[in-house]
Amino acid sequence: MNKICTIGEIMLRLSPPFYNKIEQTNTLNVTYGGCEANVAISLAKLGHKTKFITQLPNNQLGKSALKHLRSYDVDVNDIKLKGDNIGIYFLEMGFGGRPSQVIYNRKHSAFTNICYDEFDFERILKDTKWLHVSGITLALSEQVRETVIKVLKEAKQKGIIISFDFNYRKKLWTVEQAHHTIKKILPYVDICFASLFDIETIVGLKTTQSFNNLLEKRKHIFEQLLNKYSIAYIFGTVRQIYSSNENSLSAYVYSKHMMYQTEDYRFNIVDRIGGGDAFVSGVIHKLIHHFDKYQEATDFGLFTSIIKHTIQGDACILIEDEIINFMNTLGKSTVQR
Amino acid sequence: MNKICTIGEIMLRLSPPFYNKIEQTNTLNVTYGGCEANVAISLAKLGHKTKFITQLPNNQLGKSALKHLRSYDVDVNDIKLKGDNIGIYFLEMGFGGRPSQVIYNRKHSAFTNICYDEFDFERILKDTKWLHVSGITLALSEQVRETVIKVLKEAKQKGIIISFDFNYRKKLWTVEQAHHTIKKILPYVDICFASLFDIETIVGLKTTQSFNNLLEKRKHIFEQLLNKYSIAYIFGTVRQIYSSNENSLSAYVYSKHMMYQTEDYRFNIVDRIGGGDAFVSGVIHKLIHHFDKYQEATDFGLFTSIIKHTIQGDACILIEDEIINFMNTLGKSTVQR
Amino acid sequence: MNKICTIGEIMLRLSPPFYNKIEQTNTLNVTYGGCEANVAISLAKLGHKTKFITQLPNNQLGKSALKHLRSYDVDVNDIKLKGDNIGIYFLEMGFGGRPSQVIYNRKHSAFTNICYDEFDFERILKDTKWLHVSGITLALSEQVRETVIKVLKEAKQKGIIISFDFNYRKKLWTVEQAHHTIKKILPYVDICFASLFDIETIVGLKTTQSFNNLLEKRKHIFEQLLNKYSIAYIFGTVRQIYSSNENSLSAYVYSKHMMYQTEDYRFNIVDRIGGGDAFVSGVIHKLIHHFDKYQEATDFGLFTSIIKHTIQGDACILIEDEIINFMNTLGKSTVQR
Amino acid sequence: MNKICTIGEIMLRLSPPFYNKIEQTNTLNVTYGGCEANVAISLAKLGHKTKFITQLPNNQLGKSALKHLRSYDVDVNDIKLKGDNIGIYFLEMGFGGRPSQVIYNRKHSAFTNICYDEFDFERILKDTKWLHVSGITLALSEQVRETVIKVLKEAKQKGIIISFDFNYRKKLWTVEQAHHTIKKILPYVDICFASLFDIETIVGLKTTQSFNNLLEKRKHIFEQLLNKYSIAYIFGTVRQIYSSNENSLSAYVYSKHMMYQTEDYRFNIVDRIGGGDAFVSGVIHKLIHHFDKYQEATDFGLFTSIIKHTIQGDACILIEDEIINFMNTLGKSTVQR
Amino acid sequence: MNKICTIGEIMLRLSPPFYNKIEQTNTLNVTYGGCEANVAISLAKLGHKTKFITQLPNNQLGKSALKHLRSYDVDVNDIKLKGDNIGIYFLEMGFGGRPSQVIYNRKHSAFTNICYDEFDFERILKDTKWLHVSGITLALSEQVRETVIKVLKEAKQKGIIISFDFNYRKKLWTVEQAHHTIKKILPYVDICFASLFDIETIVGLKTTQSFNNLLEKRKHIFEQLLNKYSIAYIFGTVRQIYSSNENSLSAYVYSKHMMYQTEDYRFNIVDRIGGGDAFVSGVIHKLIHHFDKYQEATDFGLFTSIIKHTIQGDACILIEDEIINFMNTLGKSTVQR
Amino acid sequence: MNKICTIGEIMLRLSPPFYNKIEQTNTLNVTYGGCEANVAISLAKLGHKTKFITQLPNNQLGKSALKHLRSYDVDVNDIKLKGDNIGIYFLEMGFGGRPSQVIYNRKHSAFTNICYDEFDFERILKDTKWLHVSGITLALSEQVRETVIKVLKEAKQKGIIISFDFNYRKKLWTVEQAHHTIKKILPYVDICFASLFDIETIVGLKTTQSFNNLLEKRKHIFEQLLNKYSIAYIFGTVRQIYSSNENSLSAYVYSKHMMYQTEDYRFNIVDRIGGGDAFVSGVIHKLIHHFDKYQEATDFGLFTSIIKHTIQGDACILIEDEIINFMNTLGKSTVQR
Repeated sequence: MNKICTIGEIMLRLSPPFYNKIEQTNTLNVTYGGCEANVAISLAKLGHKTKFITQLPNNQLGKSALKHLRSYDVDVNDIKLKGDNIGIYFLEMGFGGRPSQVIYNRKHSAFTNICYDEFDFERILKDTKWLHVSGITLALSEQVRETVIKVLKEAKQKGIIISFDFNYRKKLWTVEQAHHTIKKILPYVDICFASLFDIETIVGLKTTQSFNNLLEKRKHIFEQLLNKYSIAYIFGTVRQIYSSNENSLSAYVYSKHMMYQTEDYRFNIVDRIGGGDAFVSGVIHKLIHHFDKYQEATDFGLFTSIIKHTIQGDACILIEDEIINFMNTLGKSTVQR
Repeated sequence: MNKICTIGEIMLRLSPPFYNKIEQTNTLNVTYGGCEANVAISLAKLGHKTKFITQLPNNQLGKSALKHLRSYDVDVNDIKLKGDNIGIYFLEMGFGGRPSQVIYNRKHSAFTNICYDEFDFERILKDTKWLHVSGITLALSEQVRETVIKVLKEAKQKGIIISFDFNYRKKLWTVEQAHHTIKKILPYVDICFASLFDIETIVGLKTTQSFNNLLEKRKHIFEQLLNKYSIAYIFGTVRQIYSSNENSLSAYVYSKHMMYQTEDYRFNIVDRIGGGDAFVSGVIHKLIHHFDKYQEATDFGLFTSIIKHTIQGDACILIEDEIINFMNTLGKSTVQR
Repeated sequence: MNKICTIGEIMLRLSPPFYNKIEQTNTLNVTYGGCEANVAISLAKLGHKTKFITQLPNNQLGKSALKHLRSYDVDVNDIKLKGDNIGIYFLEMGFGGRPSQVIYNRKHSAFTNICYDEFDFERILKDTKWLHVSGITLALSEQVRETVIKVLKEAKQKGIIISFDFNYRKKLWTVEQAHHTIKKILPYVDICFASLFDIETIVGLKTTQSFNNLLEKRKHIFEQLLNKYSIAYIFGTVRQIYSSNENSLSAYVYSKHMMYQTEDYRFNIVDRIGGGDAFVSGVIHKLIHHFDKYQEATDFGLFTSIIKHTIQGDACILIEDEIINFMNTLGKSTVQR
Repeated sequence: MNKICTIGEIMLRLSPPFYNKIEQTNTLNVTYGGCEANVAISLAKLGHKTKFITQLPNNQLGKSALKHLRSYDVDVNDIKLKGDNIGIYFLEMGFGGRPSQVIYNRKHSAFTNICYDEFDFERILKDTKWLHVSGITLALSEQVRETVIKVLKEAKQKGIIISFDFNYRKKLWTVEQAHHTIKKILPYVDICFASLFDIETIVGLKTTQSFNNLLEKRKHIFEQLLNKYSIAYIFGTVRQIYSSNENSLSAYVYSKHMMYQTEDYRFNIVDRIGGGDAFVSGVIHKLIHHFDKYQEATDFGLFTSIIKHTIQGDACILIEDEIINFMNTLGKSTVQR
Repeated sequence: MNKICTIGEIMLRLSPPFYNKIEQTNTLNVTYGGCEANVAISLAKLGHKTKFITQLPNNQLGKSALKHLRSYDVDVNDIKLKGDNIGIYFLEMGFGGRPSQVIYNRKHSAFTNICYDEFDFERILKDTKWLHVSGITLALSEQVRETVIKVLKEAKQKGIIISFDFNYRKKLWTVEQAHHTIKKILPYVDICFASLFDIETIVGLKTTQSFNNLLEKRKHIFEQLLNKYSIAYIFGTVRQIYSSNENSLSAYVYSKHMMYQTEDYRFNIVDRIGGGDAFVSGVIHKLIHHFDKYQEATDFGLFTSIIKHTIQGDACILIEDEIINFMNTLGKSTVQR
Repeated sequence: MNKICTIGEIMLRLSPPFYNKIEQTNTLNVTYGGCEANVAISLAKLGHKTKFITQLPNNQLGKSALKHLRSYDVDVNDIKLKGDNIGIYFLEMGFGGRPSQVIYNRKHSAFTNICYDEFDFERILKDTKWLHVSGITLALSEQVRETVIKVLKEAKQKGIIISFDFNYRKKLWTVEQAHHTIKKILPYVDICFASLFDIETIVGLKTTQSFNNLLEKRKHIFEQLLNKYSIAYIFGTVRQIYSSNENSLSAYVYSKHMMYQTEDYRFNIVDRIGGGDAFVSGVIHKLIHHFDKYQEATDFGLFTSIIKHTIQGDACILIEDEIINFMNTLGKSTVQR
């Protein structure tokens, strides 16, 4: 069994029941989520040994987040309990033409004061095969950025596969800030989850050249990134929004010598949050066993992402058989009884 | 800031959770609603100074209705606390092919005994720019009808703009009763919200003439009304029902010298109740600033109505920016984070 | 099996969860209750064939009340579905020093328009052994009073045992109104549930005589009633209130030739409503089999009442064995596993 | 009024709220369901006198199931209270591409030890016009099978109409086991609810002949069954699954001399469980009055089934008018107020 | 009507239902609370015109707090919407021998960055008769302390009565920090809510003298404070804890020339939070009308505090009649029906 | 860190909210519990490395039980997923004089078919310092009894400390059955949790001798057991029941050469289930470190048990500091803020 390690913030997630707005409710549904935590949980459900690294306040809130992770069999033994606030996000579920709203209450959270020296990364990364981190984490504070870069350096030296998800959030940092930091990250990255916007605008690989269509442009821009850094694959999804309850997704992968693009699938949504993290989880699940089966990884990632949209909470908590059944039936599966 | 005043009944609204029927539930979700109260709340949310006039029992039920209105910044200082029962309506939410059911428990409510002389309408209407009332209110009792007619007379003398929404409910009165009362109302009305049915059947402007289509017929009938009374605009919506969860709406406006008809938009529904009141609110919101921008008012009214269907409860509680964002994206808006 | 018939109003009961006030909640717990309906349900649970007579609106609210009664095996076949409003009461549960509050929303309910001629009482009362009615019912309207008096006359002719519970509610009628009506009722009554206040103030059997204590006074006053009417027994309870969560009760019975008074028992309370109706049920349960075992009836009535206070909802829904177990252990019973 | 009797298991049904998975919830919604119990409840709601025969443990769980049935006016007087466990099924509601999951916890339930001699079927079946049973019941235990076969024999002798729903569940028995038992049942059956799979694979009426389409094949296979047994009609539905939230259904009926097939209707789903039982109920409702109006029965059955999908819980609890209104509007019905 | 102004932080309060611990729940009950906000709400309920000054983030969380205050008729027009986080506290309700736990998640909240110059205190304090602030507010940040001191200075110049509640919280600041700040506050204070600990340890008025009992000591220490500053009254309560569900309280008042001490009352508890703020509210309610009726104020404050413990949420939301009824019956009040 | 291993059944526990009876509710609160599982969870919370051995069905129900255990850091790696039903118990919470009721639905559960050979006990017991089992487990089936006896033999050989809790449940087996099995168990037992009833009636160490009081009798009987078997300590508690909400407990320990008895403490109750298991956990927690500190163990066990009664669910989930704080304050602890 290969060990996978992710590093980031896990937040308390609070959302009003049944499409109410925050001002209408007097109860909030509770769960926990955060990009890298979601990936760790999904991969644990898919059968991997996963470890999550973060910092949480040493109180009932921090410990409840630990309990949540532990219940999904994520290794929490190296999480540090220190600091004042837990990061919180409030989620007002959209419906139809009304978009979902995320309200962050995470500024100055315990995680933003994480310190590299207070963790034993030498031991933590031992036997680790894969390390995953996202741009959201990098956006949180200078201390986080310093810590993550040190961890990536250490991981690179140990020959660990490093994946990075751009996941740009404009409520957290500007394009300039992201550009400045991510440039330092890319030399360590083996697998990258990115959109055209990420590479063109954040990395800054713009061109004045004109293209017949978006696909050609993406191919051109992505090739530049693949030429510049030692990145094996760029994965991504393209989303069409019909309403808050109905989207479609297709997925792609690019390497230096090939590209692959799936069909577009339309689906209903119970909870969209974490759809991207489920894609990452599905891709890693396949790639960690067969690093060259990029098509299979893209397909599995896409369907893991789509079915995540039918699950309450941030993480896809289905097992492999359930995802395979979904791929085979495309949702036309009867009641299982 | 212009003051808007509405007069009518606010009821306790009780509905079973998650599409259950009344006989299946042992909890009821609580909110408050009523045609003119919904308009007052929506307009307050859109930034207007609004006052609501009604009569409620002087007990915890009446006071909780006050608290609800006050929480949305509606001026409740002239509401009279007197009488025995609060009007209640039970709402069994429909789903798919099963229609929603409204069960009224409002007969003999405190409001039906409202008395003009017990309110200081001289003061209440001072500085008021707009007064709104609906046909539901007129249906409730003879005392209500007398009071409303006196208020309209008073308002007319003060030069207040008067809008009237036909809102015919066959569970509350017959076509004959409505005809008899509304005829007395129309001379005071500046803006009228009406369907072809309302003008043809309730006002009684039928014709034996034949038309190529409904539009021509509506134009003909509406012109008769505009010729007969000093009504500036007739606004209305046309609804297609695909299921309890999916409808479409278009909107129109007629004046003596023009008409305007929007496209038809299809949408998903969380709570249809108050969709018409949201249309009224959106129209008033625009018209109160620019009385001649009827097209803008129709569009804004339509989208306020459509997005209301995604909100729990009777009233649209979104702010102007949220409605404009919806108009711009037509619901294809991503999670806001 | 003896048939017991009760006549009165069953109301929709709505109460906020967990000691919240009405203005604080946005959900209400739903059940149904009313003096004579509670007695019918409890007696059905105690193994009797019971029939309940009332009038309810012919809509989902009326039918849900029927469903509630039927689920407890009360015969609802002679309930009339007619009228507009269901009677509703809101219950704000008190706690500690804060008293419970009942807010009635029952004026003009369907039941208040009940009409003797629309029921087939000839058939309904056939084979009936016992008929029970309370003062609350008499308070509701002139039509109710007329109907009940006709029913009592009919029942008397058929030799049915008639029990009457004074249950004076000052929110429903004045002492004068009660006096006027109850005087007409008493000639028909065999068993009467009454307090000293009821006999002294409502019946009007005051005295200027002085007594050593309340017991002597009660004995004196009750004897006057027993002498004046052909009443076999007067039952009643005496309540001490320590807080909304803790009361004590004792019970008594008087006939012409004896009296019996129980000890006073102190107990905790989940839901006090219907405590008196449970006493009535317990007394009838014993007396219907052995009309002379008044002591046993008083004891069983008292403990049925006390344990009712530990049950949510208006009615005691325990079976005989559970009440006997409680009498034997006085609440010192361990977990039953 | 004709008496209808059904025999089978009623289970406690537990399902997580709002599309959560079992591992995510700490509350479960409670109702009761089971093939023949659902049919009894629906037919009671449609105005028939229905009796349900089963065996339940003599504890609060068994008695709560009784209370549920009684609340819908199903006659429970011949249900036996005996045994240890109540059968339970857990229902994880699917959404979009994620299918619903039924987890049975019913092995060795009280019903599986039912014993013919402990019921007075002579009396129970007296005045019964129609008896219904399903294949699920036969799958449960040898004792159940023995009992049902004796009941069918007894019913046949009394001239009662017998309907049988194949309802094959692979989690409960193998095709071989079903074949062996159902062969013994068919000689008693007058009306049979079956799919092509049921007749071909379970009854074993396969053919090597080739057909232009499924309709022809079904016609051929069904005719064989009709020729072999004295079955008057075979009814069935054909379901298309678009997602867990959206299916379509058409219905058919075959007799020796005719067939009838409805159009296919697409619809939204709140709760699919019991859709088949609603079809059975609708068919029986029509056929019991006019045994030859098979087309009307098929149509009414189909729409009863479709609208069941909009109702929470296993049984269709609508009255005839509501189903007729649905048939007339095809779901395009406005709010009823 | 006199205007009362309070300044402080209102927090989102989140607590698990029914005595669960945070790690056990997946829903949280929502309300809002904070020392001075509670006082503002209670005084509004008691009939006063109250204004609350704070700073909240300009998002759904800040606006929901506004809505909460507005629903209780607190003037929110001068609250500033600015900053990132809303202060949050989690409340794990204790039971029996298990104490309640408050977990703060309020560090760096929007309020801690409040800036005097961004408010128009000249206008805000106009017509204000009473200003109240607590030690919790002073503990939050240097910016808060600066702002409050400027406000107090301004208020003093305007002749506004200033009350101050020590409310020392060791989780927020040390005794030394409190001492340093409160010394600067006391010269402005007219009414002070304090315990012996507050004056002895925080103000630092220790003595080496020995006393016969605590009362004598308190008298001695309090007199020193009254001599040193121009404080008219020191009010306070003494609490005995029997369990998380049962406490007792007595209250006292000291001025230069007198003291008054109530009896000790024992009571049951639904929600202890805000008990002290209710005492403050009751005292101000009486004193604002009759500044010399300190005994009446102490009594009314004590009973307002005791009955608060029976109310869910931070603030006493009862009206004057309800508190007077409680004082008269000492909780031995029957169901009000 | 010492490893503790427990073996038994973990059941799904379902209970109606807020003191409702099962027949009144349509939601059930979900948790998991069972004697030895409770001990494993509590000891994990107290800082020990604990492993739980059981057999659960390989479906969502079994896996949710695993998730529950894992969330509390109990090692579940040797739990076998096999079989049909999960054991379930329904808990109707008593109140006041109404006792709690446990309704078992566990007959023929997966655990009852446990088979020694399908577990690798050689490896499981390696490094184990303490093994705990209870009489409930032995009552479940012959296969369970065989397995447990083999495990005890194996453990004894490995020098593991073995504790046994009689926990006699009359709903599960007769005294004779218990006698027969427990006789075989006692030779392996080092620590035994037992009442006088257990030793006298189940072990059968009766005497005809007369005693001055229960204490003397217990001493005499217990000494016989200590003489007959190589049992180091007998621990137990004595419970007084005042009501379902209020009990008192004292605890005792006996060895060959001493005895110790605590005072009796009275307390309020939220959830009594698991009180005995908490006592066991507290005793083991202390004894595993210092086998001779029996007094300290008895005290700590008693207070762990008492505070368990304030926690929802079967297991005490408090950490050592919380229990020590409780011992120091005896529940007179203020809000911790």
